[in-house]
Amino acid sequence: MGVEIERKFLLAGEAWRTLGEPVLLRQGYLSTDPDRTVRVRIEGEGATLTIKGRSEGATRGEWEYPIPLADAGELLDRLCQQPIIEKYRRRIPFAGNVWEVDEFLGANAGLMFAEIELASEDQAFDKPDWIGEEVTHDRRYFNSSLIRLPFSQW
Amino acid sequence: MGVEIERKFLLAGEAWRTLGEPVLLRQGYLSTDPDRTVRVRIEGEGATLTIKGRSEGATRGEWEYPIPLADAGELLDRLCQQPIIEKYRRRIPFAGNVWEVDEFLGANAGLMFAEIELASEDQAFDKPDWIGEEVTHDRRYFNSSLIRLPFSQW
Repeated sequence: MGVEIERKFLLAGEAWRTLGEPVLLRQGYLSTDPDRTVRVRIEGEGATLTIKGRSEGATRGEWEYPIPLADAGELLDRLCQQPIIEKYRRRIPFAGNVWEVDEFLGANAGLMFAEIELASEDQAFDKPDWIGEEVTHDRRYFNSSLIRLPFSQW
Repeated sequence: MGVEIERKFLLAGEAWRTLGEPVLLRQGYLSTDPDRTVRVRIEGEGATLTIKGRSEGATRGEWEYPIPLADAGELLDRLCQQPIIEKYRRRIPFAGNVWEVDEFLGANAGLMFAEIELASEDQAFDKPDWIGEEVTHDRRYFNSSLIRLPFSQW
């Protein structure tokens, strides 16, 4: 098991748009149960199956396996809850960390946020000035929640 | 994607007990949604993650991946819906096919059935005389159903 410790923030302004190359991510869920989410993701030519446990604070257990790209396409199209999530992700290095900035498409168009992965819950880090309010603990922003209640329906 | 075509039968008598070596299977579910079940299974020193789609007749789409034994143990103990399923499986060759005979433990103790995997829905096959009534289409016998409504509560 890996452990994912992640904090999530809204964005302030548009400066982040010029700072990283957008990569398309397509992801769907075989389970959106918060105790045991199962995600299928395609990013470029790679695909993964990722299992996550319940969040405790900013921490979640995580198990991830590479799967064949063709399998991931079948799972996204045929088995995952619809609609799947599509988003552009930019990876932006800042002050020794990497920020992942996600810009959503489809039913979640208009939604954008940034995440930073940490080694411990109390790890200090500097924020770029395009980082806004923290939403780590707001479940609406979970990708698995965005399937059931997309941003367009908030 | 693989396709699983399987027919399921109750047992008649006890003759099957002497015909195969019982192997303990421990399995649990990350999703019991009939449209997208996700199963974790440990059999001996091997472990798999298996995704199955909705049944159409005796046929289901199936995607299976080997995972590390330690991961499977963590997933079964910490993430899967409880209680997990434990059963002894015997593999019994008969007339060119292999019958899998499952004898359940725990909350499903007393439940036993046999399955045969086929290449097509209309494939003919001979049945040993310890095979009883067919229950292929009875969802109560799905392993994923036995988590929610174990045999002891029927």
